[in-house]
Amino acid sequence: MAARPGGHNLAVMNGPKEKVLTLDTMNACVKRVEYAVRGPIVLRALELEQELRQGVKKPFTEVIRANIGDAHAMGQKPITFLRQVLALCVHPDLLNSPDFPEDAKRRAESILQACGGHSLGAYSNSSGIQPIREHVAQYIQRRDGGIPADPNNIFLSTGASDAIVTVLKLLVAGEGRCRTGVLIPIPQYPLYSAALAELNAVQVDYYLDEDRAWALDVAELRRALCQARGHCRPRALCIINPGNPTGQVQTRECIEAVIRFAFEEQLFLMADEVYQDNVYAEGSQFHSFKKVLMEMGPPYSTQQELASFHSISKGYMGECGLRGGYVEVVNMDPAVQQQMQKMMSVRLCPPLPGQAVLDMVVSPPEPSDPSFTQFQALTEKVFNAVPGIRCNPVQGAMYSFPRIELPPRAIQRAKELGLAPDMFFCLRLLEETGICVVPGSGFGQREGTYHFRMTILPAAEKLRPLLEKLSQFHAKFTREYS
Amino acid sequence: MAARPGGHNLAVMNGPKEKVLTLDTMNACVKRVEYAVRGPIVLRALELEQELRQGVKKPFTEVIRANIGDAHAMGQKPITFLRQVLALCVHPDLLNSPDFPEDAKRRAESILQACGGHSLGAYSNSSGIQPIREHVAQYIQRRDGGIPADPNNIFLSTGASDAIVTVLKLLVAGEGRCRTGVLIPIPQYPLYSAALAELNAVQVDYYLDEDRAWALDVAELRRALCQARGHCRPRALCIINPGNPTGQVQTRECIEAVIRFAFEEQLFLMADEVYQDNVYAEGSQFHSFKKVLMEMGPPYSTQQELASFHSISKGYMGECGLRGGYVEVVNMDPAVQQQMQKMMSVRLCPPLPGQAVLDMVVSPPEPSDPSFTQFQALTEKVFNAVPGIRCNPVQGAMYSFPRIELPPRAIQRAKELGLAPDMFFCLRLLEETGICVVPGSGFGQREGTYHFRMTILPAAEKLRPLLEKLSQFHAKFTREYS
Repeated sequence: MAARPGGHNLAVMNGPKEKVLTLDTMNACVKRVEYAVRGPIVLRALELEQELRQGVKKPFTEVIRANIGDAHAMGQKPITFLRQVLALCVHPDLLNSPDFPEDAKRRAESILQACGGHSLGAYSNSSGIQPIREHVAQYIQRRDGGIPADPNNIFLSTGASDAIVTVLKLLVAGEGRCRTGVLIPIPQYPLYSAALAELNAVQVDYYLDEDRAWALDVAELRRALCQARGHCRPRALCIINPGNPTGQVQTRECIEAVIRFAFEEQLFLMADEVYQDNVYAEGSQFHSFKKVLMEMGPPYSTQQELASFHSISKGYMGECGLRGGYVEVVNMDPAVQQQMQKMMSVRLCPPLPGQAVLDMVVSPPEPSDPSFTQFQALTEKVFNAVPGIRCNPVQGAMYSFPRIELPPRAIQRAKELGLAPDMFFCLRLLEETGICVVPGSGFGQREGTYHFRMTILPAAEKLRPLLEKLSQFHAKFTREYS
Repeated sequence: MAARPGGHNLAVMNGPKEKVLTLDTMNACVKRVEYAVRGPIVLRALELEQELRQGVKKPFTEVIRANIGDAHAMGQKPITFLRQVLALCVHPDLLNSPDFPEDAKRRAESILQACGGHSLGAYSNSSGIQPIREHVAQYIQRRDGGIPADPNNIFLSTGASDAIVTVLKLLVAGEGRCRTGVLIPIPQYPLYSAALAELNAVQVDYYLDEDRAWALDVAELRRALCQARGHCRPRALCIINPGNPTGQVQTRECIEAVIRFAFEEQLFLMADEVYQDNVYAEGSQFHSFKKVLMEMGPPYSTQQELASFHSISKGYMGECGLRGGYVEVVNMDPAVQQQMQKMMSVRLCPPLPGQAVLDMVVSPPEPSDPSFTQFQALTEKVFNAVPGIRCNPVQGAMYSFPRIELPPRAIQRAKELGLAPDMFFCLRLLEETGICVVPGSGFGQREGTYHFRMTILPAAEKLRPLLEKLSQFHAKFTREYS
């Protein structure tokens, strides 16, 4: 060890020094990232929960976390079949137990068969367990009325977020006016703005039309694109369907128009379809971008690049905590696809429990299997549209994004506090009622409009008083500042 | 939908077009990433496995994946207690089963108690379940002879890789000659080179001394640093202890010298200590950087910034597939720590099964608990030093990194094929014996030396013939090219 003699004393003499890593010296792109779904509101909710536990008196007895679409946290019970199979995979001694149905055992055995050392504790291939990729392909094919899907185009991931960031990462290039621009909806799910900020790409906003139930209009896409072309190179278009936080479900005509637009304008399409199983409004139906693209025929079906994302966190299963998902790529340059594979391999593999549950989600038990009735039970659950303060019908996803009017004095007060007006409203709401929702400013909204996002997942007996409390608070807040 | 009339025909007339995303237009940083542990060798191994399944005749009957430290894939059985608790967490109906020990049930109940909706399917806090962070802090405190650890400085992660990339991401800043430089050992675990390439930071190589059993020499750190200062701004120093792929265990004196060096030179320390439970050579002992730092007293203990990483993938448990880990940060600027928290929240939370297993790893059952004997069984397993072709003693971790001599004509032949000489050797080894190891060029090595990394995890009855085959192949290869 060639330590410099006297080094120790020298260091001591120098006295307290600057840290290596400070707000001034850290990655500026990271500093620009914002993520409202888990921002200051949620940190304050955590503190309030702690205070309640310590016996501090509040005007409420519990914090209701309506800020995030987390089905299990809201009391939804996991699907028995999923959990039986997962328990069998985790602890194969249970394969000898008479308490588990035969189809669950068969399923667990087939998953373990595909694992290194027959254990969920071994790494899988970086793109996921091969038979599960095949099951995902079969699922997509069934969903899309027989249009084929290639397992080699399917990459399993740590939730959809992981795959979305990986694809964005591939797309980001250039400097200055040649920087990659990515079109995203406003309001958006803030993963997009956060990832683009971190990757130093240009966020190009297109606005959804609140007056037409948050519809997507191609004229607005064109406006956004033209305006962006002056200062960046737009290369990708992100669609969230069903919408988050806006809950709209796109029509087939709309999807066709978007695909034609992307094709003409040379944009890589990213379709965030994680809420595809959460469509419940009368007359609304989910159409996958892949299916519409393929049915449009050449040149679209043979040339238009598309990545479609799905997740086990939503739908009827709501297994957020297991972090499972996948991306299917269509018409991607094979050399780029290899690069994507490489990027995924650096992080070794997606968590195996999430992969196992994805396997069950994409190939649920057949009607003849003993578990079928139990498995279907929760999928028949009916969600109610939320009577918001001023709110579009919720066609899909699991959120309501109501618009709220705020009195000018409240807006003024918020400005004095250095807060967005709807953040001010949401913080006050949390303090006084324990209800945790996310301000619309975290998702983006038209200048001068204010919203919040809340999940519609709480059980009926909780949702009703929650909505009443919220309405009462809004009335009180409005009185206070008028 | 304001689709442009005639847009369709226009597009069709344009005929086949360039893809949006090609090797030329994609993120150049991503293209530069290399990751040998899962590179072409592993892809070829996958193909060979498929060919074997299809009945293609090969000079071997199975592919042996010695390329990666994956205990379960190599036949190690999971720890029963870990898997019992995880099964109980996944499927709480089992809490009523008489087949599970009481301590496993108590543990599962306490983990579920801390989960949203008492389900592993709910998101946790982004930095991990609070009681588990507390257990990690208690574990570190016990490991470090009572030196306190603060749960608020502990962030759970999706394996150690996730946390390492997050910390590197914070550190990366600047342009041109002011770009962040990060010192990493050569040979290294290629996550570091991959992440630095992706983040467009400067990789600063310091060489471990093969002639002194891969020891780290501060004089070499100083040489690397001085040389780097001309073209970048070195801001962090990464240490892998015990070493991967090199298997050395650092002495306490060495660690002190490294800390003094980092302090004097204003470097953020990153200690990759994922093999801390894999130390088995006579006379070798693991010392954590945190403990040594604290015992050195001020100004080191109060000012030196440190991040230490650990994982559930290694050690006696080897639960790679569950993707669990943590980072402890010491003396980090609180404002930067908030930024780190924010970054983690964008990806929502680490997988819950990995968090649950981490809880058991950091607080194993007490000797009085019924499961203790079973739990300890595997930890007593003894590893043997591998008689390599020319190989340093393996003090820790789970790899051997033998040096191989290659005849000049083989080196010539490799060059003609556009391959690194040791890549050529490893590919031939795989084709002729089915043994999959990683060439040293993927980890870095001194110019003109050649190595490969193989895991020493295969069971004794498999390891011996594997080593014999390898030696025979090397002899044959040498004859063929001399």
